[in-house]
Amino acid sequence: MHSSEAIPEKDIAAIDLGSNSFHMVVAKVVGQDLQIVSRHKQRVKLASGLDLQNNLTNEAMQRGLDCLKMFAERLDGFKKGNVRIVATHTLRIANNAHLFIQRARQVLPFPIEVIPGEEEARLIYLGVAHTQPVSKSKLVIDIGGGSTELVIGEGFEAELVNSQQMGCVSYAHRYFSDGKLNTKNFVAASLAAQRELEFLAKQYKRHGWELTLGSSGTVKAIRECLVSLDYEDGIITPKRLKKLVKHLCEFKKVEKIAIKGIIEERLSVLAPGVAILQAILQSLEIEELHYSSGALREGAMYEMEERFAHSDIRMRTAENLALKHRIDVEQANRVRQHSKHFLKQVIDDTDLEKSSELVKLLNWAALLHEVGLSLSYRGYHRHSHYLLQHTNMPGFNSEQQRLIATLVRFQRKALKLSEMEEFSLYAKEDILELIKILRLSIVINVSRNDVKASLWQLTIEDGDWVLSHSDLDHLKENRLLISDLEQEQLYWQSVGWRLRFEFCDLLEDR
Amino acid sequence: MHSSEAIPEKDIAAIDLGSNSFHMVVAKVVGQDLQIVSRHKQRVKLASGLDLQNNLTNEAMQRGLDCLKMFAERLDGFKKGNVRIVATHTLRIANNAHLFIQRARQVLPFPIEVIPGEEEARLIYLGVAHTQPVSKSKLVIDIGGGSTELVIGEGFEAELVNSQQMGCVSYAHRYFSDGKLNTKNFVAASLAAQRELEFLAKQYKRHGWELTLGSSGTVKAIRECLVSLDYEDGIITPKRLKKLVKHLCEFKKVEKIAIKGIIEERLSVLAPGVAILQAILQSLEIEELHYSSGALREGAMYEMEERFAHSDIRMRTAENLALKHRIDVEQANRVRQHSKHFLKQVIDDTDLEKSSELVKLLNWAALLHEVGLSLSYRGYHRHSHYLLQHTNMPGFNSEQQRLIATLVRFQRKALKLSEMEEFSLYAKEDILELIKILRLSIVINVSRNDVKASLWQLTIEDGDWVLSHSDLDHLKENRLLISDLEQEQLYWQSVGWRLRFEFCDLLEDR
Repeated sequence: MHSSEAIPEKDIAAIDLGSNSFHMVVAKVVGQDLQIVSRHKQRVKLASGLDLQNNLTNEAMQRGLDCLKMFAERLDGFKKGNVRIVATHTLRIANNAHLFIQRARQVLPFPIEVIPGEEEARLIYLGVAHTQPVSKSKLVIDIGGGSTELVIGEGFEAELVNSQQMGCVSYAHRYFSDGKLNTKNFVAASLAAQRELEFLAKQYKRHGWELTLGSSGTVKAIRECLVSLDYEDGIITPKRLKKLVKHLCEFKKVEKIAIKGIIEERLSVLAPGVAILQAILQSLEIEELHYSSGALREGAMYEMEERFAHSDIRMRTAENLALKHRIDVEQANRVRQHSKHFLKQVIDDTDLEKSSELVKLLNWAALLHEVGLSLSYRGYHRHSHYLLQHTNMPGFNSEQQRLIATLVRFQRKALKLSEMEEFSLYAKEDILELIKILRLSIVINVSRNDVKASLWQLTIEDGDWVLSHSDLDHLKENRLLISDLEQEQLYWQSVGWRLRFEFCDLLEDR
Repeated sequence: MHSSEAIPEKDIAAIDLGSNSFHMVVAKVVGQDLQIVSRHKQRVKLASGLDLQNNLTNEAMQRGLDCLKMFAERLDGFKKGNVRIVATHTLRIANNAHLFIQRARQVLPFPIEVIPGEEEARLIYLGVAHTQPVSKSKLVIDIGGGSTELVIGEGFEAELVNSQQMGCVSYAHRYFSDGKLNTKNFVAASLAAQRELEFLAKQYKRHGWELTLGSSGTVKAIRECLVSLDYEDGIITPKRLKKLVKHLCEFKKVEKIAIKGIIEERLSVLAPGVAILQAILQSLEIEELHYSSGALREGAMYEMEERFAHSDIRMRTAENLALKHRIDVEQANRVRQHSKHFLKQVIDDTDLEKSSELVKLLNWAALLHEVGLSLSYRGYHRHSHYLLQHTNMPGFNSEQQRLIATLVRFQRKALKLSEMEEFSLYAKEDILELIKILRLSIVINVSRNDVKASLWQLTIEDGDWVLSHSDLDHLKENRLLISDLEQEQLYWQSVGWRLRFEFCDLLEDR
């Protein structure tokens, strides 16, 4: 077996920081295969630790950190690129999520990506698709602690993705806070869930699918309940759920439930989970649902290994945006080309790391910086920012998406840096360097003519950014460009950045 | 002449509140014709009355109000629908513009519309197109006190519109504040203007046009100057402008200029006007420019008479937006139909006026309420708001556009009314009524099925809004809809609005 010997084994891991539990899966890459080596799970009940102002309590944070410490032991010696950590609903909405992420990095030295709901949905689909050999078109349902994902896809491709802000933990608080198991609570929870789903139900039904699968803890627990009620095939149907509700109501109180095979901690969020699932089956007219063991962490892991192959997901996202907003592709490419060129020239004098994720994001920002023009010219950098911040962008996590939006926000005009958001994965200094590179790439291309990138040189000398040009005669004729650069210099000055030109004698000539 | 006798004569007037001057034009509609009866002009120098924080000084406001008082005497007895007042750059940017508008209404009892730059540009084009019999494609240039409009069009149709924030008053402050007439100041002003134009120049040149026309005071004064320099045909060329600059520099100081036929007040903003015009001719490679007497006020007036014909401009705007954001047109029409139906049922119990502009805007809001879905489902009412607030919308003035955006902002979810903007043309109470109607029209259509509008009745009883339905059996089956309505009732309650259902026994039945 020469070929498999040639490829060394490699350990990779994916962690999912969910609202109810943290999960880790570790796998070995053997040749073309991914062999799951171990799975770890800890119920940290992060969502229950949110106070009314959506701040995580210290206790909840500590539960999370304790779990990560354990995971860290298992990951000792893993390379940075071989561990992926994704965080979902609770860390999306907690105001002080950045605090938790900062502390987590001290315990576990790998970056944590907070991903948007739609991205979570896509990864869950990917996890299920890799676990499920059937090639039929699928609807995948994942009821989490804080959000519920619904995805229709075919093969490894998610086609419709949706993430709703309803989960078994939040619904437990909202509809079962009195601890009672009765029709009133079940109906209220189920109706609320149906309201949430009303909008997408029609769209999903029109699209259609063949096989319905449920993933993760809630569906798994419901399957166990049905098995304990003697439905041994574990298939979930509306009728059986109704039986289950009846059965649960007989316990009268949440604390009284006792079902074989279900651990106590899961029991507290079982009823709202059942209510949400009932609502989904009803809204989407689903007759039966099968449990699938694949989930978010598997999706994140499979994608990690295929990151390069999946860069085309991002490319498709960017191309769709470019098309929709009818951007000037030639101009976008000019700016991309120059920003790559400048980046290469100065990277060694900055703290930026070659081929780091951050540096790659500059490329997307350069490609998409003009999307806002489709609204109006005035203030289009702000429109670009808004569109890139709020449009679904498959393949990008929240922080990456926000970073692209931020670079684009500061592409031109006065540098109101006080408006800049905080990032937890990227250092502010690094972001500012990228903004400088993007701005210079744009300002030298205002005329939208082809300008040879190689004629421009950018260097950093004692903190001064120095721009020079190897065809001064040509430059001399371009008074307007020089005037643009002088204006840019003023913008830099106003925030204490230093920009010099090697052709400043030209400026004085005038 | 039976036919012209049959149509009674009618007096109409249009007023333009510019940054430098206020203008009024009065005309008689005779049969199919518009005969200009009188023109009035007063230099109020509003832009000069802006302080550094963009607040209009009391003195500047008073100059404006004095002028409006004079206009008011001339307009005594005019019907409301026969006077149109549009305000431009200075009132667009002044923080306290609403104060001025409030005071103005006490002097002159007609609504003042602040129009966006692009709308200004379109109306200027229309004014010139009506004055200029030639049917060639035209570029129209209008250098105002605070903004400069550039429009390319054919016939009465503007094709490319642009409004730049540069004008002869603002450039006088910025580049001629030392009062000196020398090459340095002219070059600085002209380069700054070229920088502003860099972006559009390429686009405009690619589009092309046949005839170049300039309108309004600045171009007119420059033509007078050239005539006084013995260029009797008054055609403006780059070479002649250069001569004029040389001539002006010989006066050395702004206060020393003396040119036959130009009044003193115009002289103070002549030099920056010339610099801007030079920049335009150079950027767009224009060889000659002719003066045209049509301007913004003529455009506003012609459009007033053709308002109905021009409603198709708005329709085209709305259709383009709907297409671009791929909205569900059937759903939009359901919501429109219901909102019309509800409006009709309650209008007599509100302060809303039938067929008022405000009431018409509800229709556009209903049509466009879902544009934000093209970004993402989560918070799409906010995305719709952003898009409608910031996209160029030909045919709508600023306040109308903001109103549509506001209605759409509050179409669903919690009523955070503290986020509502202020309006000067519309009463807040009226806007809230429209929001109520829009919300109810949307909530009963969440399922996106055809629901007969006639089955629903809306009435107002002692301040309670009461919704009833004439097919209770049908409604009874639709538990989800009832649940949606109950949720909507809670939203109303939270801001002190009262919503009742005539079918409340159904609610208790459950």
